[in-house]
Amino acid sequence: MKIINKIDDCREEAGALIKKGVSIGLVPTMGYLHEGHMSLIRLAKKECERVIVSIFVNPSQFGPNEDFKKYPRDSRRDEKLSEEGGVDYIFRPAAEEMYRDRHSTYVEIEGLSKIMCGRFRPGHFRGVATIVLKLFNIITAQKAFFGRKDYQQLVIIKKMVSDLNIDMEIIGCPTIREKDGLAISSRNRYLDNEERHNAGIIYESLKIVGSGIVSENSDLDKLRRKAIKNLRGSKYIKRIDYFDIRDAETLEEIRDKGSKDILVATAVWIGNTRLIDNIVIEKGKQRQIDI
Amino acid sequence: MKIINKIDDCREEAGALIKKGVSIGLVPTMGYLHEGHMSLIRLAKKECERVIVSIFVNPSQFGPNEDFKKYPRDSRRDEKLSEEGGVDYIFRPAAEEMYRDRHSTYVEIEGLSKIMCGRFRPGHFRGVATIVLKLFNIITAQKAFFGRKDYQQLVIIKKMVSDLNIDMEIIGCPTIREKDGLAISSRNRYLDNEERHNAGIIYESLKIVGSGIVSENSDLDKLRRKAIKNLRGSKYIKRIDYFDIRDAETLEEIRDKGSKDILVATAVWIGNTRLIDNIVIEKGKQRQIDI
Repeated sequence: MKIINKIDDCREEAGALIKKGVSIGLVPTMGYLHEGHMSLIRLAKKECERVIVSIFVNPSQFGPNEDFKKYPRDSRRDEKLSEEGGVDYIFRPAAEEMYRDRHSTYVEIEGLSKIMCGRFRPGHFRGVATIVLKLFNIITAQKAFFGRKDYQQLVIIKKMVSDLNIDMEIIGCPTIREKDGLAISSRNRYLDNEERHNAGIIYESLKIVGSGIVSENSDLDKLRRKAIKNLRGSKYIKRIDYFDIRDAETLEEIRDKGSKDILVATAVWIGNTRLIDNIVIEKGKQRQIDI
Repeated sequence: MKIINKIDDCREEAGALIKKGVSIGLVPTMGYLHEGHMSLIRLAKKECERVIVSIFVNPSQFGPNEDFKKYPRDSRRDEKLSEEGGVDYIFRPAAEEMYRDRHSTYVEIEGLSKIMCGRFRPGHFRGVATIVLKLFNIITAQKAFFGRKDYQQLVIIKKMVSDLNIDMEIIGCPTIREKDGLAISSRNRYLDNEERHNAGIIYESLKIVGSGIVSENSDLDKLRRKAIKNLRGSKYIKRIDYFDIRDAETLEEIRDKGSKDILVATAVWIGNTRLIDNIVIEKGKQRQIDI
């Protein structure tokens, strides 16, 4: 496994592979790798001949009062897990390498960036889209792998790739969960023991809506209210930023379930930790919850 | 010469060339080709093995009250001139091919997009950057050629390429002028005979500043006022949007000439026609006006 810090070196390595006709899978991460990332790496290894994991805690996607500084970092551990996972290259640039003096170009995805998490994290998806586009330009992979836990991010990146005619396949991978259903996330480590013990309620609440839809309950608003009531019943849920039921493709709010894939997504605060999660209920006669 | 209308076909043709190691030069245009474009094509032919000219009157870079509808178009003539110029491919997509339903991704270059023409054409450079990035993603050329007549556009595209780590060389080409100094532009055809006959005053005014700087006159503000007075002396100049003296690299306004390349740029209205022009006075002991 090779660790690369410089953009030019990374471009050169990737370019040499492409010239030889070797396919590249890119797994963009902010490091502090966990089982969610490892599942992306496994899929990338299955689908591509070489796997590049990028590790970059991207300052431009954090708001001024967000957790950029305290975001967990552990480069030794990241290296070890990547090596064990069969990663071929880690691309881990410094902040000054990615954002030069006077960086002023940003990618905006209108509409999709303003709803859901975008309402509470202004500028977040602009930062995400910009860094992802930069990575795509440096590492011209055939496929890039993203977790469905960050569902809105996945939709936005797919939209950017389509709108800007980027020649790359974006693959969304299932959310990996703890035994109690909590979606695995680097931010889970912010939770204290008691908070962690009670965090399963997020997934539980999503499933209230999911099960309702699967069992042919058509009143989405009623299901939503039931789920929110369940969350509010826990003293550990300090705030609910949103709890939305949307078209899983366009992210438009829906009032009835129709014949589309349905996204149920939420962002809640447990203590001082903001966590997001979602489930998708697939269309079709036998609706299935895809977790 | 091959004419391509579809994105996928264009990507395929360009991809096949790249695979064979054939270098591609891209000349992005809005069509209605003139001697300015032909000079870009000539340079592209000199520097690259194949030349692709894109022709697309990009709706997203025109404001609601601007000349998108009346912008001159002549596809027969464009084909003839391209063929004669030795162009290998014309990429000429329809508007619906480039902007699909619900297109919502845009590239913003902050700061640089808001000054000069950006003050008078809000959204213009956002539209330019977005379409240029799309073309770059479809046609992965080694080099792309832009006229220095649109100097601010050139600086913005270079900035985008640098900030987004796009692997392409941007080449700015000298402004081509009529005998009286008027910069060649597709919009010159909007001028009636009398207006055209008096339009040389734009270049004349730029040269007032240029000659002053070359002849070691250091009071830039005085030179600027002299040039503006000259423009205002003509009854054909209906309005001056701006007449700026700036650092030719950063586009920052400058008060003294220091030791940098200096841009003198203006946008004026002759009747109902908005025209832009600029000159760059290069640094160095013997300052030269680069037209």
